[in-house]
Amino acid sequence: MTTPEMHPSRWGDPTAATPLPDSARGLVELAFGALTEQPVVADPQLPAPVLSDPVLAAFREVVGDAHVLTDDAFRRLRTRGKSTPDLLRARAGDLSDAPDAVVRPGSYDEVAAVLAIAVEQRVAVVPFGGGTSVTGGLVAARAAYAGVVSLDLIRMKRLISVDKVSMTATLEPGLRGPEAEALLAEHGVTLGHFPQSFEFASIGGFAATRSSGQSSAGFGRFDAMVVGLTLATPSGRLDLGTAPANAAGPDLRQLVLGSEGTLGVITSVTVRVRPVPETKVYEAWSFGSFTEGAAAMRGVVQAGLQPTVLRLSDEAETAINLARPDEIGGASEGGCLMIAGFEGTPAAVEARRAAVAALLTELGGKPLGTERGEAWAHGRFNAPYLRDSLLDVGVLVETLETATFWGGMERLYADVSAALTTSLGEGTLVLCHISHVYETGCSLYFTVAAKEGEDPVAQWRAAKAAASDAMIAAGATITHHHAVGTDHKQWYAEEIGPVGVAILRAVKAELDPVGILNPGVLIP
Amino acid sequence: MTTPEMHPSRWGDPTAATPLPDSARGLVELAFGALTEQPVVADPQLPAPVLSDPVLAAFREVVGDAHVLTDDAFRRLRTRGKSTPDLLRARAGDLSDAPDAVVRPGSYDEVAAVLAIAVEQRVAVVPFGGGTSVTGGLVAARAAYAGVVSLDLIRMKRLISVDKVSMTATLEPGLRGPEAEALLAEHGVTLGHFPQSFEFASIGGFAATRSSGQSSAGFGRFDAMVVGLTLATPSGRLDLGTAPANAAGPDLRQLVLGSEGTLGVITSVTVRVRPVPETKVYEAWSFGSFTEGAAAMRGVVQAGLQPTVLRLSDEAETAINLARPDEIGGASEGGCLMIAGFEGTPAAVEARRAAVAALLTELGGKPLGTERGEAWAHGRFNAPYLRDSLLDVGVLVETLETATFWGGMERLYADVSAALTTSLGEGTLVLCHISHVYETGCSLYFTVAAKEGEDPVAQWRAAKAAASDAMIAAGATITHHHAVGTDHKQWYAEEIGPVGVAILRAVKAELDPVGILNPGVLIP
Repeated sequence: MTTPEMHPSRWGDPTAATPLPDSARGLVELAFGALTEQPVVADPQLPAPVLSDPVLAAFREVVGDAHVLTDDAFRRLRTRGKSTPDLLRARAGDLSDAPDAVVRPGSYDEVAAVLAIAVEQRVAVVPFGGGTSVTGGLVAARAAYAGVVSLDLIRMKRLISVDKVSMTATLEPGLRGPEAEALLAEHGVTLGHFPQSFEFASIGGFAATRSSGQSSAGFGRFDAMVVGLTLATPSGRLDLGTAPANAAGPDLRQLVLGSEGTLGVITSVTVRVRPVPETKVYEAWSFGSFTEGAAAMRGVVQAGLQPTVLRLSDEAETAINLARPDEIGGASEGGCLMIAGFEGTPAAVEARRAAVAALLTELGGKPLGTERGEAWAHGRFNAPYLRDSLLDVGVLVETLETATFWGGMERLYADVSAALTTSLGEGTLVLCHISHVYETGCSLYFTVAAKEGEDPVAQWRAAKAAASDAMIAAGATITHHHAVGTDHKQWYAEEIGPVGVAILRAVKAELDPVGILNPGVLIP
Repeated sequence: MTTPEMHPSRWGDPTAATPLPDSARGLVELAFGALTEQPVVADPQLPAPVLSDPVLAAFREVVGDAHVLTDDAFRRLRTRGKSTPDLLRARAGDLSDAPDAVVRPGSYDEVAAVLAIAVEQRVAVVPFGGGTSVTGGLVAARAAYAGVVSLDLIRMKRLISVDKVSMTATLEPGLRGPEAEALLAEHGVTLGHFPQSFEFASIGGFAATRSSGQSSAGFGRFDAMVVGLTLATPSGRLDLGTAPANAAGPDLRQLVLGSEGTLGVITSVTVRVRPVPETKVYEAWSFGSFTEGAAAMRGVVQAGLQPTVLRLSDEAETAINLARPDEIGGASEGGCLMIAGFEGTPAAVEARRAAVAALLTELGGKPLGTERGEAWAHGRFNAPYLRDSLLDVGVLVETLETATFWGGMERLYADVSAALTTSLGEGTLVLCHISHVYETGCSLYFTVAAKEGEDPVAQWRAAKAAASDAMIAAGATITHHHAVGTDHKQWYAEEIGPVGVAILRAVKAELDPVGILNPGVLIP
């Protein structure tokens, strides 16, 4: 199995991307004026690597010569993640955050040995799964370190075991989404975890960032699927997971989940699996307004009837067809589009579908049938490619997301929208959808498009800061599923407060006393 | 509202207890020979209180004179919890763990001020909710402290707010189960959390010990209901809960849940609530064996069809009717009794009940109708009273519990049963049921009865140690819902390993550097 590599300054494999549809081009020109092809630095220079030969030799001793990579091509592929600022900087030729080497351990023992060398030599270590971070989670602070290595988990991609009685599977962290699903499918089971980054993101990354997939209504968030894990830390090995749940003190699994490579390297994850669904049906519904649609979603989930997928676009997102990337800017029916997807046995799907349809109808929904639902499912991983096409022509596009309780949702929606529009100016497109629902609340996912100014990175940083301030002021979370990285750290500190920060620092100091693990990420 | 106090050496209010039924008396005599009334020390002496007057005055300054109690009667009521060793020691007149004073703060600020005095004066603080601990969670290590106070949360019992859009409620920690449900019922909502200790246990205790109730299949564990909380620590205030779930770092709520008063005092909890069920139906089913019944439970939960209550007694527990406390020792149908309870709207109950009935029938179950199911529901809080009646006549009775993944359940069941029988000798009654189920595993709850020897506390400690060793050797958890306390600490350390222990100690040192909070409990 060859793991696909993403383009160093674009999402995914650009040869697989469809070009910007004419309808979208028209829409964008209408909104932002004439499009101009943006320059991209073709052959950017990387900073000279600073790790000494003896240090590199020590790593080679542990993982083998073939797995310590220092050529520019590999270093470039492990530079930062895939946020819009990351892409803009890569396009501009700024690769100043490139690691000095890429080190690829093949087992727990090799990970532990690499960490030991890093501690001894004071080398910063950036655990690397799929490289899909959009919050600066792969950028280590260099100051005070002898260098930076990307700890690439690409060799650790075994399905260690499947227990079909317990319905659990133990996976290595380097498995990308499709690789994990292919191995599990041989046993007739699935994780059911399909974030937009699915094609490139890794099992270890899902766990380290508390990822949430498009089927979270039915399958749950990734952190809710994890029943056990192993963590390699500079202070030793942590094995957790004796039961699905217990009363044996704090749940330390939930301390490792979301730790973003700062407390240790996740070397295996045991997850709950389910049978591969026999049937999948995706339906579309229309609601008169975002408020009405959100109330219907809430009604469904509070009645215990949530489908596998439940997603609602606001008026703006519905109007430009964002849920159907191939037809952006094309004809829209107006109102607010909801997608309700059902997966499972035919009997279970039909029973749940009928119950949900009855309730959605009662709550003001108009059924649009399955054609639009299937179109959403078909295009579900395409949006990041569209971003590249828009960046190519000078349109600044990025997403951000948050979550709160239902009672605070309307305010959060209004305040974040206003903050973005105020910061980026008139004419900015601010689109939103709800794609993760809980009995007590939901996420809000914003897509923003504006005409690029002189310094688009600074332009976006300002807008993002304004939106983030609005989230914290509304009592919401700074991130529902993108994680903290370096970009959210300032607001994360406000969210958990000084005592929360002190807890994280204490755990960090215990597990990684020299501070080699992902320095500068997560922990304020 | 007057909060009921439990008897100092028995469970609950003994005047509310029904005497041992004749059928049970007969069974016990058959098993253990003639019964002999056990002596109880009527007026045991408490150790002289050691806190100095200036320290008591400082506490009085904060909470008011009426809320610093030093009389023996109050101290006795705050001595230890309700494990069988706790009761045996209280019956024998051993009150050596009595606190020196009971301090009753009325607000977050008063809790924080009490902690500040305790830090300054080096006084150990034992947070007290309902006093129902069965694992030594209320016994502080005295050495190196100026004294011990019971921090009684009995005055903090407001329902702070209900949000019927988000379906959440914020509660103070001192509310006992029935008090919380009564206040919530005024708003038409319920927690749905009914552990066997429900009548006396508190909201704060549910959170601090990761309690799990008899309706956990439908309502979830208490830790799964908590969406926010406030913790008063010697190092400051921690407020958590911005969204149902997020990707903002480790889930620190899950670090506070299960912390058993060792990291701080939980001063409010925000929980998910649900509408008060319109209908409740409890059905009984019979299976040919525990293995067959467990496989059927697993089938139900893995099909996503779990009822609100799902519980299965093994052959021995079924034979003596433990699920119907009024008829213990009476006629039994044999096999293994399953209780399946359904709560909700009539339509939802009927739909779920029909689906579960079809599946249970397919999996070998024989329906026994609702009469036996209702009998279980009726007697569900009575078992602890029976323990008192048996201790009265020289029968050593105690319970213990564990959990693991389905694939390891049979081994765990066999090994723990064997360990108990080997330790306590031939003729020991070892009964078991499964009462908490998950897609990936379940709990096992053992009830043990043996003839009391010379030193029943030592007799039980040895049996418990043997059972605990068997749990850890089987890769299971030392506790599914009774928590760690002092009794499970040794095995808990094995369960989470040295790195897990180091994490807890680091967090403890950060939040409670002087170590005043529940010293000796939880943290190895």
